[in-house]
Amino acid sequence: MVRFFVDPEEMQPDFLVLTGENAQHAKVLRLKNGEQVLVCDGQGRECLCTVSDVSPGQISLVVNRRQDSASEAAVQVSVYMAYPKADKLEHVIQKATELGAWEIVAFPSARCVSRPDEKSLKKKLERWQKIAASAAQQSGRGRIPQVATVGSFREALDRGGKADKALLFYENEDQKTLKQALRGTYTTVSLLTGPEGGLEIAEVEQAVQAGFQVCTLGKRILRCETAPLCALSAVMYDAGEF
Amino acid sequence: MVRFFVDPEEMQPDFLVLTGENAQHAKVLRLKNGEQVLVCDGQGRECLCTVSDVSPGQISLVVNRRQDSASEAAVQVSVYMAYPKADKLEHVIQKATELGAWEIVAFPSARCVSRPDEKSLKKKLERWQKIAASAAQQSGRGRIPQVATVGSFREALDRGGKADKALLFYENEDQKTLKQALRGTYTTVSLLTGPEGGLEIAEVEQAVQAGFQVCTLGKRILRCETAPLCALSAVMYDAGEF
Repeated sequence: MVRFFVDPEEMQPDFLVLTGENAQHAKVLRLKNGEQVLVCDGQGRECLCTVSDVSPGQISLVVNRRQDSASEAAVQVSVYMAYPKADKLEHVIQKATELGAWEIVAFPSARCVSRPDEKSLKKKLERWQKIAASAAQQSGRGRIPQVATVGSFREALDRGGKADKALLFYENEDQKTLKQALRGTYTTVSLLTGPEGGLEIAEVEQAVQAGFQVCTLGKRILRCETAPLCALSAVMYDAGEF
Repeated sequence: MVRFFVDPEEMQPDFLVLTGENAQHAKVLRLKNGEQVLVCDGQGRECLCTVSDVSPGQISLVVNRRQDSASEAAVQVSVYMAYPKADKLEHVIQKATELGAWEIVAFPSARCVSRPDEKSLKKKLERWQKIAASAAQQSGRGRIPQVATVGSFREALDRGGKADKALLFYENEDQKTLKQALRGTYTTVSLLTGPEGGLEIAEVEQAVQAGFQVCTLGKRILRCETAPLCALSAVMYDAGEF
């Protein structure tokens, strides 16, 4: 079923109107009176609706049923990624959204080659959030994961360390597996990975102090954009999502 | 440690010589006498060597020890992917190699928009194999996964169906999870996924006849390039790789 995202305040109890980009999208899809669509508030609530009128730039809908989105993961996984080079963060945002991440948080670390300045950050965040919205729509999610940034590695640790399972993946760790780290129950998980050059040992020690467990993702060295998606897939699997 | 791949027949018991691209790579890395390197035959055997002479276009090595590669997965996972559009197959080859896939097999299916013709296939296969070799080197693998193609969906089923676990991922399956399908022991796994438009129901039925189990990858619809990597990550996790 086609899925539209609207702002939460646009979610009305009986009737809804799609405008702007949503109306354009509906036009491309040639939506007709009587067809059923899903309208989501991007925060996990959605309405099953029937198209009642198609006008240029405006689609009117009758709300049939309101429900919690059925496609959201029960486990809340936050992906903490050190700023990578080029457009790798965009790739990770898109894929992590598909895979069901709760949020994606970018942070600077010692060996980050690229880190956006204050000025460009606002524009970039807008762009990143759009990528998440588009991937959420395509993959049928009811919630758009937040894309956030924090100003320091320390902040990333403080924020991520609060999860039931706060995990850092380090290529020099060869003992503790993700499977061991996930033993027991959890509803929130933070997955933290480094930039191209890896995390510094001092950073890993700092993370341990902040409550992170240091784990391996296996005997092969994963690229910085592969590691978070591999870990996220495995956590979703472990949590019983598929 | 730096890692070079040579053809199996170049693996000599006591002395080795690196030439061509390997010698160029060694020059870029400024390898010096006395440094240790790993030389792999791309099939899982490797030699720990010491550099004994650096000449233009030729690096001489003394073999210290021969060993099986320690970075290969115990489970052999074959990734069967329907030809996707654009350069998505290249992306999957690179990432699946990092994640430890045994081989990547591309095949045509009913809804494939792109399928290379006989003429372009030879060149493409060469290119794909190079991508696998480069990813194997970067991720520290001792074996370069084979990239293969088969001419029909039927052939993909016959070839992939022989694995201990032959699994097809289908967006309309909502009962059988990957976790259920992986119960019991296995050493070989085939993971089959469709193109952008998905597999046809007749193809799914054909796969079941050929011994495939049909599974879900969760409540979200994954892009055709995300699904195989998500499944591969989960299988590696399930098999105890990390």
